[in-house]
Amino acid sequence: MQETLIVNARVHTMSPRGTLRGAAVALRDGRVLGVGDELSVRSLLGRSVLRVDAQGGSVIPGFTDCHIHFTAFAQRTEQVTLEGAGGLAEVLERVRAKAADLAPGEWVVGGGYDRNLWPASDRPTAQALDQAVPDRPVALASKDGHQVWVNTLALERAGFLSGLPDPAGGVVERDEAGRPTGVLKERAADRIWQVVQDPDLPTLRRMAARAQQRLHALGVTGIHVPEGPTAFRLFQEMATSGDLALRVCMMLPADRLQAAADLGIEGGFGSSLLRVGPVKIFADGSLGSQTAALLDPYQGREADGYRGVVVTEADELEDLVARATQAGLAAAIHAIGDRANRMALDALEPWLFHSRRRGLRHRIEHAQLVDPRDRPRFGQLGVIASMQPVHGPQDRTLVTRHWGAERAGHAYAWRSLREAGARLAFGSDAPVESPDPLLGLHAAMTRRLPGEAWEPEEDERSRERLTLQEALEAYTLGAAFASGEEAAKGSIEPGKLADVVILSHDLAQLPLEAWEELHVRGTFWDGRVVYRSQDLPVEMDVRVGS
Amino acid sequence: MQETLIVNARVHTMSPRGTLRGAAVALRDGRVLGVGDELSVRSLLGRSVLRVDAQGGSVIPGFTDCHIHFTAFAQRTEQVTLEGAGGLAEVLERVRAKAADLAPGEWVVGGGYDRNLWPASDRPTAQALDQAVPDRPVALASKDGHQVWVNTLALERAGFLSGLPDPAGGVVERDEAGRPTGVLKERAADRIWQVVQDPDLPTLRRMAARAQQRLHALGVTGIHVPEGPTAFRLFQEMATSGDLALRVCMMLPADRLQAAADLGIEGGFGSSLLRVGPVKIFADGSLGSQTAALLDPYQGREADGYRGVVVTEADELEDLVARATQAGLAAAIHAIGDRANRMALDALEPWLFHSRRRGLRHRIEHAQLVDPRDRPRFGQLGVIASMQPVHGPQDRTLVTRHWGAERAGHAYAWRSLREAGARLAFGSDAPVESPDPLLGLHAAMTRRLPGEAWEPEEDERSRERLTLQEALEAYTLGAAFASGEEAAKGSIEPGKLADVVILSHDLAQLPLEAWEELHVRGTFWDGRVVYRSQDLPVEMDVRVGS
Repeated sequence: MQETLIVNARVHTMSPRGTLRGAAVALRDGRVLGVGDELSVRSLLGRSVLRVDAQGGSVIPGFTDCHIHFTAFAQRTEQVTLEGAGGLAEVLERVRAKAADLAPGEWVVGGGYDRNLWPASDRPTAQALDQAVPDRPVALASKDGHQVWVNTLALERAGFLSGLPDPAGGVVERDEAGRPTGVLKERAADRIWQVVQDPDLPTLRRMAARAQQRLHALGVTGIHVPEGPTAFRLFQEMATSGDLALRVCMMLPADRLQAAADLGIEGGFGSSLLRVGPVKIFADGSLGSQTAALLDPYQGREADGYRGVVVTEADELEDLVARATQAGLAAAIHAIGDRANRMALDALEPWLFHSRRRGLRHRIEHAQLVDPRDRPRFGQLGVIASMQPVHGPQDRTLVTRHWGAERAGHAYAWRSLREAGARLAFGSDAPVESPDPLLGLHAAMTRRLPGEAWEPEEDERSRERLTLQEALEAYTLGAAFASGEEAAKGSIEPGKLADVVILSHDLAQLPLEAWEELHVRGTFWDGRVVYRSQDLPVEMDVRVGS
Repeated sequence: MQETLIVNARVHTMSPRGTLRGAAVALRDGRVLGVGDELSVRSLLGRSVLRVDAQGGSVIPGFTDCHIHFTAFAQRTEQVTLEGAGGLAEVLERVRAKAADLAPGEWVVGGGYDRNLWPASDRPTAQALDQAVPDRPVALASKDGHQVWVNTLALERAGFLSGLPDPAGGVVERDEAGRPTGVLKERAADRIWQVVQDPDLPTLRRMAARAQQRLHALGVTGIHVPEGPTAFRLFQEMATSGDLALRVCMMLPADRLQAAADLGIEGGFGSSLLRVGPVKIFADGSLGSQTAALLDPYQGREADGYRGVVVTEADELEDLVARATQAGLAAAIHAIGDRANRMALDALEPWLFHSRRRGLRHRIEHAQLVDPRDRPRFGQLGVIASMQPVHGPQDRTLVTRHWGAERAGHAYAWRSLREAGARLAFGSDAPVESPDPLLGLHAAMTRRLPGEAWEPEEDERSRERLTLQEALEAYTLGAAFASGEEAAKGSIEPGKLADVVILSHDLAQLPLEAWEELHVRGTFWDGRVVYRSQDLPVEMDVRVGS
């Protein structure tokens, strides 16, 4: 039972004690034992302790990423990466190179292509992919994950060339002759992913171990994962074998709601290591694929009145929320557009009393565009706004392009939502964006990426900036609240789980301009070191006498 | 964080250290911190500890009851109790009195009637019950729980008078005219229980709290529960509110296997408080209802060759085991008769390699009559024999009556099974039998109930007696092994969960004749006192100085 003493730290306790300077934290048996001045905290421990010098850097509760597609993130690194590719030729070259590395017949899977970076004349088509890779199926996810670009072999494998009806809630792009172009959106994209070979479990476990290490190096100690039974099994097996070193809250896919109800599994079942969370329900699509459901037409689409895609119709959404709530599960509703957010709030409203009584904490995932009139409803209904700050700066151009300046002016309104009574819970949406919470903190505090130039229209939106304390809270105590665990984690207080992170700088002193120097020096999870940078001084401290 | 020191104890560690006399045990933060001589164990603790004097009595790991129908047990105390009723008149009188206490329309539910105690001419019929209670439905479970006796209103409610086909795997007793007599067995009985009103959750929680107290007073700190989603929800809500003070392993009903597979829930998911266990599958019925499946005909039924009821046919049993195993769940197969036990072993055999690799621990529940040729298969296949020792003496008369002397001679063969390599896990089958593990220990060691006269035919079976150490192990470490938790509990060792029981006597010294004096003095669960008798000395021990 290793005892640890972290000294010389700026401790952001996230408790009513606030932040302490030059303070110490004692960890024992996976719990925080004490916080305060070094002498009194040292006396709580035995003779021999691991003494870690924070050198004046901030010590914070471990970050929880409240929205990360973990196995997709883990697999992404093994796939062809199309991030940053500036046009069709570059994409095809990367795909061709990857295909050459694979065993015969294996799928080429990739992701991250972003048409917004391409010349307007370059178009993703099945024919283009066929030329690069004619002999095996190819499936490439767009950066936002809401569409997939495939070649002809993949279209064939998924039945799109056999005359099956198009899936409801999905879009199959077609040319003038009615042939699929190779781009599929939402439920149509899902049909492709269903036939793509999944890695087998041993392969997935190797990928997961590397992904976990990457998260530890970023100070992440907990994750909320909107993925299905394969991911759930993965985490159970990692937990059984002692390899899981992240606290995982599983969001169940809506098509598993009935199974949970039949079994009698309720939200919160599990342990501080792995637990059942809310049911994830899609109300709409995404910004990048122009499938987010809006109240008014998309910018430039006033003529045909296109307002995006409702993935789950209002009556079905209401039914799912009703069934989830009755089964003792909260709802986590994916809603990007203002229409989808209103639909989600409408569906949750009738369950206010019942949910309070049962302790169900419903949430809206993303909440990127909320009509200002709907903001107070988050507070009134106790709905958590589960947002990903990096989307703010990353989506800036797209938002203005697709939604127009006026709507862009009240998108990603974390401060307004907070002031309207919403509890914030922050995440990354990785692999859509980087999982680095230090980027997220910066985005939440400035609406910019580190090093990014200041833009006048963002200055107008400076009212949406959060303070350091507010942004940290959404990644720690707010995240713990979202999974019903605020009594056990999310702050540095005696008795709480010993998930703490040592940063390279004192956040209270660090100028925003110097943010890029900031990094994680050490990550403790369950009281033990799971990540340690070269520059973290650690020594054994042995006291003589009793 | 209360620290506790138990002193002056005979500690049955169930570890390689064996039993220690005059020893002490230290508990901190829900864990065992140390075991050994008082001075050295005291030094592990802080200044102020709760000092508990075991007065030379045995200290053992808390008992786990590996087979208890917990909510049925909790409800039973609220129902009309027919245990010990010597005939029809006495049963009807108790039922009539209970009915007078109930609100109009409410079901009269009861259990424990035992026709073996009645005059041969007394018969359970719907007509007899109608006379006692004409105006509300009545459902009375037999002592073994495998049949139900109902009145006409109950037959009507469950559809037995509407010409529906009889359920497969069930028996509807009929008179010469083909009318149901009122006695229903196995799957036919299940149809009744499906229409009986369940108590609402608040009522059930009150009952459960009392049942939990009763178990604590018997030294029970863990239970394996073969019940459905209602019980599972009950335990989750007790856990959430902090009221659950038993470690619960849920056995999932076979009809929930698909839901678990769909969700990706595997065996072991949960926490040390509440976890998912195996899938419970019924191979046959029971001894008392003569529905246990035998290889050869029942005693006296050689003429018509009646060999009992197979509740799940061999191919379906094999299919269920295959699906459970592939879903990461062990199978717990209810098998009483020798034919059912052989079927269960046959179904498990193909999965030997896969199960070992996945760490799945299959079990047979009851294993009351195992053909001697099948015994070694428990060891070869790694199948746990989950037995209830009190059944041995309680069933003695019935076994001889229905199965005959020869088969009786090798029934309840716990030592033979153990020597053939089976791991034993003991329980009570409450409310079928008393949940008192001290009765179970006595039965396992003597094949008698305390105070019961010695019978010559049992002396012949004395080879099946277990030693104290062996019997204790089946209730503690063996039980922990059955749920995959032997690293965390089941013995008194540093780091293990602090579930320990203080007994009134030193088991190593107590003559079996004095067993009735033995009782529980104190029960610690998760390091805290959950039961304490009047005669347990407890004081605060405060050391001065550091």
